[in-house]
Amino acid sequence: MAAIVTFLSDYGLTDDFVGVVHAVIARIAPDARVIDLTHGVARHDVRSGALTLARALPYAPPGVHLAVVDPEVGAERRAVAVRCREDDRILVGPDNGLLMPAAAALGGAVEAVDVSRSPHRLEPVAATFHGRDIFGPVAGALAAGAPLAGAGDPLDVGELTPLALPSALVAEGRVEAHALSIDGFGNVQLDASHEELAGSGLKLGRAALVNGRQAQYARTFADVAPGELLLYEDAYRTLALAINRGSAADTLGLRLDDPVLLEPA
Amino acid sequence: MAAIVTFLSDYGLTDDFVGVVHAVIARIAPDARVIDLTHGVARHDVRSGALTLARALPYAPPGVHLAVVDPEVGAERRAVAVRCREDDRILVGPDNGLLMPAAAALGGAVEAVDVSRSPHRLEPVAATFHGRDIFGPVAGALAAGAPLAGAGDPLDVGELTPLALPSALVAEGRVEAHALSIDGFGNVQLDASHEELAGSGLKLGRAALVNGRQAQYARTFADVAPGELLLYEDAYRTLALAINRGSAADTLGLRLDDPVLLEPA
Amino acid sequence: MAAIVTFLSDYGLTDDFVGVVHAVIARIAPDARVIDLTHGVARHDVRSGALTLARALPYAPPGVHLAVVDPEVGAERRAVAVRCREDDRILVGPDNGLLMPAAAALGGAVEAVDVSRSPHRLEPVAATFHGRDIFGPVAGALAAGAPLAGAGDPLDVGELTPLALPSALVAEGRVEAHALSIDGFGNVQLDASHEELAGSGLKLGRAALVNGRQAQYARTFADVAPGELLLYEDAYRTLALAINRGSAADTLGLRLDDPVLLEPA
Repeated sequence: MAAIVTFLSDYGLTDDFVGVVHAVIARIAPDARVIDLTHGVARHDVRSGALTLARALPYAPPGVHLAVVDPEVGAERRAVAVRCREDDRILVGPDNGLLMPAAAALGGAVEAVDVSRSPHRLEPVAATFHGRDIFGPVAGALAAGAPLAGAGDPLDVGELTPLALPSALVAEGRVEAHALSIDGFGNVQLDASHEELAGSGLKLGRAALVNGRQAQYARTFADVAPGELLLYEDAYRTLALAINRGSAADTLGLRLDDPVLLEPA
Repeated sequence: MAAIVTFLSDYGLTDDFVGVVHAVIARIAPDARVIDLTHGVARHDVRSGALTLARALPYAPPGVHLAVVDPEVGAERRAVAVRCREDDRILVGPDNGLLMPAAAALGGAVEAVDVSRSPHRLEPVAATFHGRDIFGPVAGALAAGAPLAGAGDPLDVGELTPLALPSALVAEGRVEAHALSIDGFGNVQLDASHEELAGSGLKLGRAALVNGRQAQYARTFADVAPGELLLYEDAYRTLALAINRGSAADTLGLRLDDPVLLEPA
Repeated sequence: MAAIVTFLSDYGLTDDFVGVVHAVIARIAPDARVIDLTHGVARHDVRSGALTLARALPYAPPGVHLAVVDPEVGAERRAVAVRCREDDRILVGPDNGLLMPAAAALGGAVEAVDVSRSPHRLEPVAATFHGRDIFGPVAGALAAGAPLAGAGDPLDVGELTPLALPSALVAEGRVEAHALSIDGFGNVQLDASHEELAGSGLKLGRAALVNGRQAQYARTFADVAPGELLLYEDAYRTLALAINRGSAADTLGLRLDDPVLLEPA
């Protein structure tokens, strides 16, 4: 069975960045299979990349998991490879918080190396394209069987940079949540779960107010009319807002981290 | 030779939906090869997805053909797997008409199962992501060699939901056609073929009127000047409108199903 | 090890063009592996496609390198396959200059055939989709081991169509450059290199004027503040303009071939 490399980034598909990283990996690990998770993460949006990675990886075969959302490329942030407890999966990417929710979802980080000056890197390393010159080659070498310890300098897992996240406040009669991430359809994930709503008075199957606007707390899109606002548990069991056949983010004017007040109607 | 899974959807590439379905298939059928036909079908546009699938599949190797354009996800529509006469190809997707033109193009449906509660599905099935929890796992299991009959409950092929399509009216001196689908370049496919135009007075190589606007009935883009409107037989032998280096849909203000009157100039 | 086909085009990912070419190749060369370099080349922009291909291929494994940016499809331009000195790599595409910088980057063209009427083509050849009917099948057949000489009619490499490129003028105190290509982030590649700037008075680490606007001649994005204009050597060692977390093309109003005057500040 071929070694698996998954790949997530904010490179987009307009340019050749993703293709060149695939090319580099194919040279180093000719038998590895690369699965693109997505390259449509909003540019430089480390948090959305991190949450997407953490939700997607449990569905992927074990292997090397490459992720690049890297606003500080060329500056001082570390480049790292991190082994997780579950299935010895290895995460490769910048040490800016991007990998941390995924590591947590995979049993926690148990070993880490700083690959900024990895022997696997391509020289000269361009200041603006570490995907090609550091992350891709390191992921390829690991997929081809190179040991993690030889891929860089040892690093205590406690030194890895955490990811900052907002946190909803649940009270009787109101939930003060935030727009945690927004997908390409304009669905808005919130920093709360269905379970956390117990005690707030919000009940599945009932009407709710979202920033003062009428909504249904429903099971799925098909439960409301086209154009209607919907509060629901999404496919990753996160509480989310959607508009059936429309964009909740556009309609509510929501951007990342904006407050979202939920109340029983 | 690896088993083939083709995959078409309206998921887009901005989010991780496509990547997660790839991941799920790779877990279930590690040796299968997935070919993405496109994920750029306009959101919820079952008809464009159906026509694109039917045109593309004859060029693809036989295998399992996964398609997801599914506005009624989470509601009562069936999820199905359908075996076609030609090469025992198997179509997997929602039973909303999406698979029917492809089945017809592949010799017709000869066996069908309702996979809504397939033993291959991932539990818990999310109400909004059947690609991950039903269609992808079923396609993966079938690609890995599982028998069709075991993938769901038996279903008479006559019960499969047909696809509604408009139909052009050809008369002496005029053809009343419709915008059948619109591609990413703004080319507009019509519900008529070159052969059906016999008797209408429209002739290849001559001028024509399209909704009253001057056009050339030509063989290819290069036969007209940049900016000029073109009536032509497209690469799938469908009659279509295009503007050389421009968008026919934008210029003519055409949307799906809009009437398109063709007359000799 | 599987034969490699790389694939670059301006087809975009909204439609099924790319997917159908993949399907065609998979039928002809079931064991070949296809690496998408990018399909986001601006429509009909032969030069950007040519430069992207030439920059990307040195990172790719040797194989068959398919490229389709083809505004004259259906007209008289030749379709060609070209063997390069380096690693016997074979380029396949339209003879409109698209392949020539890549051939030069790979040691030069040493053998060419006109594949317009290749025995490998799919009949009937559609006037508007040579990717499916000529280029894809030829690339697939070559990847499956067919000899180059049998793929078409012999052609002198001297007859291949060159690519026209602008050329910067470097003088004391000023460089008259041009916008050579523009990527999806709005970064603008110029027709000059860092080395060519010797003698102009422009110095790395100093301020510069770009079309009269204040800029920093810096090593990387992280060297300037968000919103600031940056002149830098990009990851392919081309001189380029960027705005940290913004679009240089939009801010400066630059389009392809526009003049860009560089002066010491």
